[in-house]
Amino acid sequence: MKNKPDASYAYDGLERVIHEKARLSIVSSLAGHPDGLTFGDLKELCALTDGNLSRHLQLLQEAGLVDIVKSFHDNRPLTVCHLTVPGRKRFLQYVAELERVIADAASAAKTATRSNPRTRLATDT
Amino acid sequence: MKNKPDASYAYDGLERVIHEKARLSIVSSLAGHPDGLTFGDLKELCALTDGNLSRHLQLLQEAGLVDIVKSFHDNRPLTVCHLTVPGRKRFLQYVAELERVIADAASAAKTATRSNPRTRLATDT
Repeated sequence: MKNKPDASYAYDGLERVIHEKARLSIVSSLAGHPDGLTFGDLKELCALTDGNLSRHLQLLQEAGLVDIVKSFHDNRPLTVCHLTVPGRKRFLQYVAELERVIADAASAAKTATRSNPRTRLATDT
Repeated sequence: MKNKPDASYAYDGLERVIHEKARLSIVSSLAGHPDGLTFGDLKELCALTDGNLSRHLQLLQEAGLVDIVKSFHDNRPLTVCHLTVPGRKRFLQYVAELERVIADAASAAKTATRSNPRTRLATDT
């Protein structure tokens, strides 16, 4: 995509692999738990189904963001997930861009208060 | 989706229709320009192609977030877009949830500095 100098709302730093809502939940959870989280922990923290969690974890692993270790504990399979070191770095870059979205929204709220809402064509549904 | 009390990273407030990256660009741009933006303005500000912008604007209109007025100016078609009043409200709610993502990330960054990365192999639920 051509990134014009005035594309000030393009938010190119919102890396798509992290931005998707379920994956943002997973990556945020893992960022908050540097000792790792089990599949069961993640399922609860992110309110995801087994199928969705598996699918998104696989995508995150393929993208190099998440490391998944499968082992056995008391004869039961145990899956533990961590953010990789580059994954943590990419998440921090993503969050820095989110901060820009919020700063823009804050300045937009000020503009909207100054503007006369009666002059807007904002019709309701 | 069942919202368990411990689904603390589910971020249910990230409304999907706004969260998608291109639509987030569009809605943020419009929030910053209460007098409305033309199709051409939006294309530049969001760095989107005609096709993508049309498609996402239609979705936003169907979801009641954006109002699109088509008219003529100097015999040329002119499309002007605004956030609707409920659209602005929903965007502010969305941004409040984004602030929670950022607060979680900030507290995660502190946890990560305290934690020793060599000791991570977690326990099961």
